[in-house]
Amino acid sequence: MQINIKPIGYVKSDIKQSTFQQDIDVSERKRQNQLKYKQIKETISELIIDPAYADMLDGVETFSHIVVIYWPHLLTDEQRKLRKVHPMGRKDLPVQGIFATRSPARPNSILISTVALLKRQNNVLQVKGLEALDGSPVLDIKTYIEISDQVTNPVFPEWVYQIKRELENETNQ
Amino acid sequence: MQINIKPIGYVKSDIKQSTFQQDIDVSERKRQNQLKYKQIKETISELIIDPAYADMLDGVETFSHIVVIYWPHLLTDEQRKLRKVHPMGRKDLPVQGIFATRSPARPNSILISTVALLKRQNNVLQVKGLEALDGSPVLDIKTYIEISDQVTNPVFPEWVYQIKRELENETNQ
Repeated sequence: MQINIKPIGYVKSDIKQSTFQQDIDVSERKRQNQLKYKQIKETISELIIDPAYADMLDGVETFSHIVVIYWPHLLTDEQRKLRKVHPMGRKDLPVQGIFATRSPARPNSILISTVALLKRQNNVLQVKGLEALDGSPVLDIKTYIEISDQVTNPVFPEWVYQIKRELENETNQ
Repeated sequence: MQINIKPIGYVKSDIKQSTFQQDIDVSERKRQNQLKYKQIKETISELIIDPAYADMLDGVETFSHIVVIYWPHLLTDEQRKLRKVHPMGRKDLPVQGIFATRSPARPNSILISTVALLKRQNNVLQVKGLEALDGSPVLDIKTYIEISDQVTNPVFPEWVYQIKRELENETNQ
């Protein structure tokens, strides 16, 4: 079985460069991840949706957050075959299977990102906090809905808490 | 541009029948939605992942929740062309563009569902609360991670709160 997906639009962003899988040491990777996290948090991007779909966005502006489903178009086929990774390229953290991570490299690299919706103008959505690189194809837009998406008391392994502490400490400084 | 997706597995579930877009009146639809919500909340399904990908699940069992990305295979091409709907088939609620809803009918019907992960056994994940019908192709599995997925103080239109109140009142009885 094969499913054919035709993008509904694309991302316009100042984030142009992938930092995926550069072979760098732990302290430099930590520093880069912190910088990137801080940058993404403040980045304002546009989702340019095919004008033929504009009316299908009606009502989206009454939500504060949307889930963007997009495709990391710069990954190579080789990268999509990765089976295990150090989370966020951090060699000091335990290797995980791809499905236990949010790595963009995966058999079907359908990425999801929940972001704040700042504005809608006809077929263009302005959002804040989207990691997608400039030019990434958008596959779908969904509104963030509490009863579907909110989790009460989620549990994570220690490496997730460690990354969270590191990233958030930096941005609070 | 076209993206080709090959499923990584499929859903095994007791939910066999779609309730999508049956033409029924408001009070009956309300009743059906409440029943369905209650049923889904308690449903335990299995995600049967291709054994060739089993090691890519390593570590997933250390998370309490995962995001399942799947394809509603029983929708027709006609249904995927829907542009606007009454949310959850409720004719008393204001019509919304498809992208403002979580309707399965959409140009690329890539559905996402955040569920509790109960157990992993090699290539099989047991989950609770998945709406996907039996046999749905699974496209991707991601772990639910706070810094990526959690939203503080989301805002919704009134119809979302109304649905939430109705569904949750019923299940608390």
